[in-house]
Amino acid sequence: MKTLKVNLGQRSYPIYIGSKLLSKQEFLTQHIPSKQVMIVTNETVAPLYLDTLQKLVANTEYQNLILPDGEIYKTLDTVNLIYDALLTHRFDRDCTLIALGGGVIGDMTGFAAATYQRGVNFIQVPTTLLAQVDSSVGGKTGVNHPQGKNMIGAFYQPRCVLADTNTLNTLEDKELSAGIAEVIKYGIIRDLEFFEWLENNMSALLQRDTVALSYAIERSCQNKADVVAADEYESGVRALLNLGHTFGHAIEAGMGYGNWLHGEAVGVGMCMAADLSHRSGWIDKPSLDRITNLIARANLPVTPPEELTPEKYLELMSVDKKVKQGNIHFVLLREIGQAFVSSDYDNELLLKTLS
Amino acid sequence: MKTLKVNLGQRSYPIYIGSKLLSKQEFLTQHIPSKQVMIVTNETVAPLYLDTLQKLVANTEYQNLILPDGEIYKTLDTVNLIYDALLTHRFDRDCTLIALGGGVIGDMTGFAAATYQRGVNFIQVPTTLLAQVDSSVGGKTGVNHPQGKNMIGAFYQPRCVLADTNTLNTLEDKELSAGIAEVIKYGIIRDLEFFEWLENNMSALLQRDTVALSYAIERSCQNKADVVAADEYESGVRALLNLGHTFGHAIEAGMGYGNWLHGEAVGVGMCMAADLSHRSGWIDKPSLDRITNLIARANLPVTPPEELTPEKYLELMSVDKKVKQGNIHFVLLREIGQAFVSSDYDNELLLKTLS
Repeated sequence: MKTLKVNLGQRSYPIYIGSKLLSKQEFLTQHIPSKQVMIVTNETVAPLYLDTLQKLVANTEYQNLILPDGEIYKTLDTVNLIYDALLTHRFDRDCTLIALGGGVIGDMTGFAAATYQRGVNFIQVPTTLLAQVDSSVGGKTGVNHPQGKNMIGAFYQPRCVLADTNTLNTLEDKELSAGIAEVIKYGIIRDLEFFEWLENNMSALLQRDTVALSYAIERSCQNKADVVAADEYESGVRALLNLGHTFGHAIEAGMGYGNWLHGEAVGVGMCMAADLSHRSGWIDKPSLDRITNLIARANLPVTPPEELTPEKYLELMSVDKKVKQGNIHFVLLREIGQAFVSSDYDNELLLKTLS
Repeated sequence: MKTLKVNLGQRSYPIYIGSKLLSKQEFLTQHIPSKQVMIVTNETVAPLYLDTLQKLVANTEYQNLILPDGEIYKTLDTVNLIYDALLTHRFDRDCTLIALGGGVIGDMTGFAAATYQRGVNFIQVPTTLLAQVDSSVGGKTGVNHPQGKNMIGAFYQPRCVLADTNTLNTLEDKELSAGIAEVIKYGIIRDLEFFEWLENNMSALLQRDTVALSYAIERSCQNKADVVAADEYESGVRALLNLGHTFGHAIEAGMGYGNWLHGEAVGVGMCMAADLSHRSGWIDKPSLDRITNLIARANLPVTPPEELTPEKYLELMSVDKKVKQGNIHFVLLREIGQAFVSSDYDNELLLKTLS
């Protein structure tokens, strides 16, 4: 078992990473201040882990809320179901919301916790690789709007993150690959040594080797915790975590939420960002190939969907949050392990990347 | 013109109070960082002050959003209209939302600003006395839920508050009285000298004497700023600002939102809190009478609506935010100018107050 810390002054919190953490009471209990606990999960995760988690909070007056599964339900309407449940059970300001599931459950439950009675306690129990290495850490919460992904939300930090690596055993292969996309991201933007480790250990990860997975999760969370501690509200360096996300969000929205997994879209998006970086004269061809190859070896798509035209990309990307004063800001690469944010790209080259 | 400051470290901001501030450009402009500005107001306020405010932001690419007027529209659905407008006009993270109106407009616009793209700039231009002395200061934002008032929201501070006292000239008498309820509140909870000033100057306030009104607004805002600076997230002393609000919220909800003005309900609520304080042996009868008389002289109701039974009160109050671990917490009075929070009251006495 490993404990990492996200250093945010009074809002600091631990990330517990290890196998079978869901059967160990000591970690969770200390972060629950009152008897009122609501576990928010979905139809896929509930049959697998709800019973186990309930045992951990058996000494509280816990309630469960089981939501439908999928990105298409990541809406204000679904968050309203959480508010309804909290009010129906007369939950007060000292209550605790526990998100049991992947990124969608974590984002929505976190947003409900951020906004119920102007903020209540919140705990993340991520059960997908993507959630364990990325979305459960750092306090980004929110929902989609028909006109854009994650357009409504709040920065709201959890009290703790409990990542039980055993929950990954039940993950579908494509969900595992989607999570690996975000793992690779940390290597590309700021950790060349980790990128090289991933090149040497991709097969082990795909075979769900426990030691390899645990190491990848720890190193990813450490990278994320460092970045978030340096820039909680994304006014600077945190933006680098969005590598591939501007392209990726456009793919997710353009193809209809839920048709592409977030991690799949980010995988292609990172290839596109690397491609634009290469066309712009920053990274060299061998580095571009190493990035594309590693993403491909993770069984992730490396070419964008044919349905989207460059015009459609530009339209979709212009409502992304990475737009400032009308300019799209991309995360681009100087070399592997060195990313930077730029709105100073050649539009001709961007159009070539998009087509 | 007077400038007060709310001291909240990096989130500190000025409150500008004075007459004809809406025709002076210098205050607002410095708090607007980009060209994208959206003025959110309602059908009542727009014909009165929208033109004037637009002139102040004429050098930006401003948009207007005119919402229906009234507490019944203080819902997530209405906030969704703000999100829609922001996205339709491709507003980015550097945009500014200006709330032009009373407490409902300020609360909703502030919540939209807190949650659009996880937080954008926000400016309060309150045009009612209640908003100028209370709701525009301190960062409480939010909307009602069918099961409770202000149940969904966030703490989110504005960049500045611009209180033009001339806007009070167009206020209906009952709106003026509703604002005076919150003014009286500051005297009762923490400022005996101000309470005495109000006893001597109530007629001047009701006649809209400019000097008296300005002084009342300044002194109220100073009281509020002091309390908020000491306890931004209401973990302690800020709760005292809720004097009369637990009873008041129950009246508002029980009578149907919009039928009682918030300030009217708070006026009765303060009488009820004083009554319970007296029955409990804290404040003496003369103090109770002084409180009731001052509220009555402000043309505010001092007796609760007959329609609500004690049982209904208890039911409504049990979902209020001032409930902790199942106990309702009331703000009660030791004497005028000395309030405290207590859940240690005699239920028999509470029932007497409620009937």
